[in-house]
Order: sequence, then structure tokens, then C-alpha cells
Amino acid sequence: MPRIEIIGLEGVPEIKPGDDLARIIVEAAERNGVKIEDGDVIVVKSKIVSKAEGKIVDLKRVKPSERAREIAEATGKDPRLVELVLKESAEVVKAVKGHLIVKTRHGIVCANAGIDRSNVAGSRDIVLLLPEDPDASARRLREEIRRLTGKKVAIVITDTYGRPLRNGQVDMAIGLCGMQPFRDYRGQPDMKGYILRVKRIAVADEVAAASELVTGNGAEGIPVAVIKGLNFVEGEEPAKLLNMPKEKWLFR
Amino acid sequence: MPRIEIIGLEGVPEIKPGDDLARIIVEAAERNGVKIEDGDVIVVKSKIVSKAEGKIVDLKRVKPSERAREIAEATGKDPRLVELVLKESAEVVKAVKGHLIVKTRHGIVCANAGIDRSNVAGSRDIVLLLPEDPDASARRLREEIRRLTGKKVAIVITDTYGRPLRNGQVDMAIGLCGMQPFRDYRGQPDMKGYILRVKRIAVADEVAAASELVTGNGAEGIPVAVIKGLNFVEGEEPAKLLNMPKEKWLFR
Repeated sequence: MPRIEIIGLEGVPEIKPGDDLARIIVEAAERNGVKIEDGDVIVVKSKIVSKAEGKIVDLKRVKPSERAREIAEATGKDPRLVELVLKESAEVVKAVKGHLIVKTRHGIVCANAGIDRSNVAGSRDIVLLLPEDPDASARRLREEIRRLTGKKVAIVITDTYGRPLRNGQVDMAIGLCGMQPFRDYRGQPDMKGYILRVKRIAVADEVAAASELVTGNGAEGIPVAVIKGLNFVEGEEPAKLLNMPKEKWLFR
Repeated sequence: MPRIEIIGLEGVPEIKPGDDLARIIVEAAERNGVKIEDGDVIVVKSKIVSKAEGKIVDLKRVKPSERAREIAEATGKDPRLVELVLKESAEVVKAVKGHLIVKTRHGIVCANAGIDRSNVAGSRDIVLLLPEDPDASARRLREEIRRLTGKKVAIVITDTYGRPLRNGQVDMAIGLCGMQPFRDYRGQPDMKGYILRVKRIAVADEVAAASELVTGNGAEGIPVAVIKGLNFVEGEEPAKLLNMPKEKWLFR
């Protein structure tokens, strides 16, 4: 009988630049009585990865460009925030009243380049960027957790995004190491011998969404979940494979 | 420590029109040694709901209209299937080579009105429509399971859909009763007193995605999952609230 368990780790301390996140996660698991085992998936909110990487910016030090001012005017957003969003982006996808949707340097299409103004210590002017390279962060976390525990886990780094055509936000995978992002059925026959309608399941995004059910929102302060019992395929592919290339977009 | 468990029920028999799905689910839970309790979420793939409701059509009996033939030509799809898709739809959203995206009668934006050609007994010409009213199906299942077991559960009925801008498919909630579809943070301050960037989590879609991690694909024959330990807010709202109204679409 397939059965998974998803456990949120409580008591993870406030993360500061330079913190050893792997050690902090391993110690939090111990304190929570969660034994890290081969085949566990450790899901980490990007916010604490960014904090450990020191991706913190004081908006008071940002000088908006002319283009940032124009987009700020069109969207109703803070020109300094827009300047940072542009620096983090490969492309502006939508800039309309209330919404600035971009493709980030990492290829993720999301609002405000994933820059977070809430829940960052200190002042309303302190914002948090996404990790420098979330897939690389996942690879490092996986290696370091292996070094500390001897266990081979998969790492999924998540962030919370809205979805076109669908109300509400869900957590998605933006960094990945140790599990394949997809379960691929393309070309496979089903029980009756027909080619399946379902072609490729975005398992890493499902893992991210599932983890949010225990990590809840940032306000609850549970930035790490451990998933046990998941039957996944090991792999080294990055989460960036989840970003649909623009030439395939049906909705623009 | 927040902890949830997701259990896939094995051995659910092939569902036939008129079957008592609530009884079949309760019996499958018993056979799997899963005790149904107050606060459980029972996640059901729409495919078995459709089968129990007899939403099965033989394409050999479908006469394509002129409009269906035109769209079939444009998309490269079977004109009889297109005819059925149109009957199930309020609106055609995209009709391009290889893709027919519609808004269904229920308001769901998805490919082919969710009509399933795989895994339906008999012939390649037998297709399965979505349930007549998935929210009503969820309400009935909830009531009947309560009658059979005395327990108050939430029901989420799911289907597997692609997403604009993102590769791969995930399970989403198309029918709901007993839990609120969203966890709403709008206007709430975070730990530091700032208004949260995250506004409204689509919990029902996260539940659907999470369940897929154990129910896998139809080919594996696990159409029901039980989620235990989830901290959700009881409610009677339908899954249709997850459909973003067209006037709010940023991507078209």
C-alpha cells in the first residue's frame, strides 16, 4: 500500500547570512525526533536558502533607472523594488496595474522575480531575493546532508506562486537535486493498451505543493519538511526543466 | 509537530455505472486496514466518479457538427471527440495544432474538456466525460460516507491537467466538500507586522497534487487516497472557486 508521511520541522532558528543550512536542518530533524534516512525528500522553503546566502537588499540603497520608474508607474509598484526585479530578470512578461510578471534569470515566470518583502527582519525596506542558483543550492544541500548523516536524500527548494487561470497560490519547485522532476509516461500504454492521456507528471511540483500542507505559510515559521516513503526516481536533473520554454506557451 | 500521512487505497475494483462509490471506498479502506476518522480528507480521482455516474460515451454514436469538423481540422483531433468537447464546454479558449483548450460547463479551463480516452474499458472509441457536477458529487460522497461510517470527512475530487508556462501535469481539485478551498492570509500581518506577500493558498489544489504522489497514474490503478492529520478549515465552498474568472486572466 503506497503511503507517505510529510513532517514539518519545528524550531528552525531565524537564518542569518553565512549560516550552515545543512547542519541547521539536520539538527532540527534530530530535535524533532525525525531520523533522516536514504530516500527521504527534504523540502526547503527558498526564503531560508536566500537568507543563508545573504540575498538581502536594503531598498534604501537602490537607485531606480528610468525604465524602472516607467514600469513602477504602470504597475503602481515601488520604483526601487522594480529596479531590483529588473536586475533579477531575463525578461518582463507582463507589466500592468498591480502586476509585474517576469521571467527571472533562472527562467521562472513569477510575480516580482520572487522578491519577498514580507517576513524579512528589520524594516519594510529590507527585501529578499531568490537564491543565486536554486538548483546549485539544492545540490550543495544534498551533498552536505550526505556528509553529515551518510544518508542519500533528495532536496526540493520551493517558493509560493500564483498560477495563470487559477485562483490562489501554491508552492512550486525552483531548486532540485536527487529526484527526477517528472514521472514520464509518454508513449506508454495503459492497462487496456491505449496510449495514456497523462503524459508527464511534474512530481517535483507536487512534492512542493504537498510540503506546503505542513509548512503552511511563512507566518507559521516552518521552513522545512521531510517526506518519507515517497517512491521517486533518483536523478540529477534541475528544477529549471519545469520552466516551459516560451516558444511552447499557449497563453501569453 | 505538523505531520500528515497520505495513504493510497489498493484493490479498488473496476467501477461500473450505478456503483455505490461511497460504499466501495469505505470497504476498500477497511480492506487496506485504514480506519476512516473525523477530519480525514478522502481524495478521489474524477475518473471513477465519472464511471459510477455512467458518463461514458461511444464515439461511434457521435455525429460531428460543421463547427466540430472545422476545429478538428485546426487541431488535428478526432471530429467526434471535438463534438463531445464542444458539448461539454462553455467556451473554446484555444484551438491550435495539437491543442484544444476549453472552459468546461463547470468553469474549468483544461484540454479536451477533461474527456479521457485512455483506460476506459472496451474500445479506443469509448471515452469518459468529467462528472456531471463534481462539487455535487463531492457533497454526496461526503454525506454517504458519513451515513456509512458516522465520520465527518472532507472530499476532494481530482483530475490531471497541464499548466500554462510550466512543464508537466499535476492533479488539481475539481470537486470539493468539507474543507475550504483556500487558506486566506489577505490583509494579515506576518511575524514582523508586514502584510504578507502570500495572500491565498489554494489548499484544495495542494491536496490534489499531494494525493497524486501515492495514487500515481491511472495505469497503477489507485484511484483513492486518504489524508490523515491535515489541519484544514471545514467549509462547504465548491472547487469551482478555484477557477479564475476570465476578466482576471493576465495570460490569454
